[in-house]
Amino acid sequence: MEKPFICLQSDFGLYWGSVSSMHGVIASIDPSVQVRDISHLLPMYRPWAASFCLNYTMPCWPAGTIFVSVVDPGVGTSRRACAAKTASGQYVVTPDNGTLTHVKAFPGIAEVREIDEKLNRRPGTSRYNTFHGRDLFAYTAGRLAAGIIGFEGVGPAYPADEVESFPLAPPEIRAGYASGHIAMADHHFGGATTSIPIEGFEKTGIAHGDKPLVTVTHKGEEFFRDRVLYHRSFGFAGMGEPILYNGSTGYMIIGLNQASFTDKYAVDAGLDWKVVLSL
Amino acid sequence: MEKPFICLQSDFGLYWGSVSSMHGVIASIDPSVQVRDISHLLPMYRPWAASFCLNYTMPCWPAGTIFVSVVDPGVGTSRRACAAKTASGQYVVTPDNGTLTHVKAFPGIAEVREIDEKLNRRPGTSRYNTFHGRDLFAYTAGRLAAGIIGFEGVGPAYPADEVESFPLAPPEIRAGYASGHIAMADHHFGGATTSIPIEGFEKTGIAHGDKPLVTVTHKGEEFFRDRVLYHRSFGFAGMGEPILYNGSTGYMIIGLNQASFTDKYAVDAGLDWKVVLSL
Amino acid sequence: MEKPFICLQSDFGLYWGSVSSMHGVIASIDPSVQVRDISHLLPMYRPWAASFCLNYTMPCWPAGTIFVSVVDPGVGTSRRACAAKTASGQYVVTPDNGTLTHVKAFPGIAEVREIDEKLNRRPGTSRYNTFHGRDLFAYTAGRLAAGIIGFEGVGPAYPADEVESFPLAPPEIRAGYASGHIAMADHHFGGATTSIPIEGFEKTGIAHGDKPLVTVTHKGEEFFRDRVLYHRSFGFAGMGEPILYNGSTGYMIIGLNQASFTDKYAVDAGLDWKVVLSL
Repeated sequence: MEKPFICLQSDFGLYWGSVSSMHGVIASIDPSVQVRDISHLLPMYRPWAASFCLNYTMPCWPAGTIFVSVVDPGVGTSRRACAAKTASGQYVVTPDNGTLTHVKAFPGIAEVREIDEKLNRRPGTSRYNTFHGRDLFAYTAGRLAAGIIGFEGVGPAYPADEVESFPLAPPEIRAGYASGHIAMADHHFGGATTSIPIEGFEKTGIAHGDKPLVTVTHKGEEFFRDRVLYHRSFGFAGMGEPILYNGSTGYMIIGLNQASFTDKYAVDAGLDWKVVLSL
Repeated sequence: MEKPFICLQSDFGLYWGSVSSMHGVIASIDPSVQVRDISHLLPMYRPWAASFCLNYTMPCWPAGTIFVSVVDPGVGTSRRACAAKTASGQYVVTPDNGTLTHVKAFPGIAEVREIDEKLNRRPGTSRYNTFHGRDLFAYTAGRLAAGIIGFEGVGPAYPADEVESFPLAPPEIRAGYASGHIAMADHHFGGATTSIPIEGFEKTGIAHGDKPLVTVTHKGEEFFRDRVLYHRSFGFAGMGEPILYNGSTGYMIIGLNQASFTDKYAVDAGLDWKVVLSL
Repeated sequence: MEKPFICLQSDFGLYWGSVSSMHGVIASIDPSVQVRDISHLLPMYRPWAASFCLNYTMPCWPAGTIFVSVVDPGVGTSRRACAAKTASGQYVVTPDNGTLTHVKAFPGIAEVREIDEKLNRRPGTSRYNTFHGRDLFAYTAGRLAAGIIGFEGVGPAYPADEVESFPLAPPEIRAGYASGHIAMADHHFGGATTSIPIEGFEKTGIAHGDKPLVTVTHKGEEFFRDRVLYHRSFGFAGMGEPILYNGSTGYMIIGLNQASFTDKYAVDAGLDWKVVLSL
């Protein structure tokens, strides 16, 4: 049987040997396992962003793929280390700190197990309490991918409803109206990804070429208010002009054509960042 | 037959799951295809830079390699999506927006085909118009590499001289004199890569140890003017001193020893950035 | 026999095709050799950092792995290009410029050979003197990994004690006291890695929960002085509070919980940056 891919993501940065150490641990277990990187520049100490990134990336990978996510501000403290099997047949090895929020809500968690450090901790690492990415998560994922342990070999199962998760506020949708919050603020291309799914937005009846009024507020303060063109892609707006479009994330995005909406209007992500779109 | 490598480049950044999504799409088509990254931090929205980077990188890879380049400010608008076969037997899958400038000029384009979205678009992605990197380019490249389609399966051929390209001004070379422009301004090591090829420069007779006068001007304004040592490597100049040397790109580079010429003198790239080297 | 991994590190940045060029050179020699990246964002022109990063990363990889390290301010000048075989059965292909400092001191160098450019330089590259990473180091490593040459095929051996290295000052350890210097200043998570090994620190008798006085001075000037909690992980300190912990590098680290010690106190690395920990 073909061995599954392992995909790694973290907030470790790319400036040093941390990421390669995880690759090396897996290569030392089984050099034939294919290991790939998602991102190691996720926002530091923010498991929410790790969860959102998994939600975005996982559907592109085959069933059986093992994801290792290490955004772990509580490393070495009492938070659980776990491996989850999703309802869609993939695996996530991660600190149980909110990183499984979307996995728990959407494909759903079929089974979750706490990593047994007595069995699945890299030998010779008892002095180190700050690099579970290498000594626990990559090591466990490597053993799973290599077939040295099965999923039940990770450690004892616990109830999936004990898995830590952040609140996911559902959007409000009606004819000519959608509201929600900013779920992810991208500071590279500069789009603000909302919590409004494309499928939901389609029910508003707002169509390509329409210009709904878009407002972004934070605790009552208005950060953006303007009529914004809804169209296929940012390239339909004038250079630097605002645009509303279907994001490749599955959610509606507010952006500017070839400029940064998030930087220009200083918006960030979170339940407090309210978005309203109305005709 | 061994499957070709796929090499990916883009301006997507490394902060998020976009790049991994492309890897995953290919892994889902055929997990045995080897996918490698060139850079995903190319200057945003600048197909010229993508073209220059391909020109630099492609000769190091074997014949048959499939390059996917996605610097795509016109995504979801009317620009063509294509795959080109080069005269040197490699492939480039890309928006037809100038990214093929150097490929068209140097090895030459043997054949170019427009991607047929009815055949070569990732199923279930009709709602998304802003991530052709994932849904069209990586998907088509993966099918090519896996042998699911041959090159003619990409879509209908069109004339290579219709391929979009930027002007490439030839340098002026004579004894003791070479002029051209800055083709690429590196802001990492800080060298200014000129449009003057090493082979051309050798015809000037300027030799290691000579100190030609170097001027850099932009629309008549002088940004740099000094005698500059021409030598084997930047390490022959004093620390922070200017140096002219044969770039690993195949073109002459003006730099400083262990400092940034482009930052210190605020120079950028383009046909307007004139360079003159004279004894 | 399974082919060894090649792991690449450099200060080349990720903004351009340099790293991919090295991958391509190896793929052109033998597409079945597995090539992985450590970091290409190492501090520019600082072989010390390259040495420290190798020291950190190499133990995670299997015996036989070939490391290529290219932080090479003297490229194209008279510094030696070499390949070293370590006492632990791994290989490092690198400029001999201090990058082998830790390898020489810790596992030890079993054998070192100067790369013979007549045999092990990529054909057609005699005009280029500034990219030995591609034309010499990756090329030689690829030939070694592919089995085209054995280690003796690299070039002539020379005495290991001629290998360039930086001074490694041993720490001073006694009951309730440890002193050394800052060996690496991380500007991502922000920890200051000291030259005090965990095993040495354990002999001080300082225990989890203790609050030794920590001072950091540079040429007599005090940059930090405070009682600092020693504990398992940064998560045991209050948010933004200082913490002393066992680093995953094998050395003691001074940091802040979810903030940057190196930025807040403007500390850097080097023998001049003295650290004293005392009860």
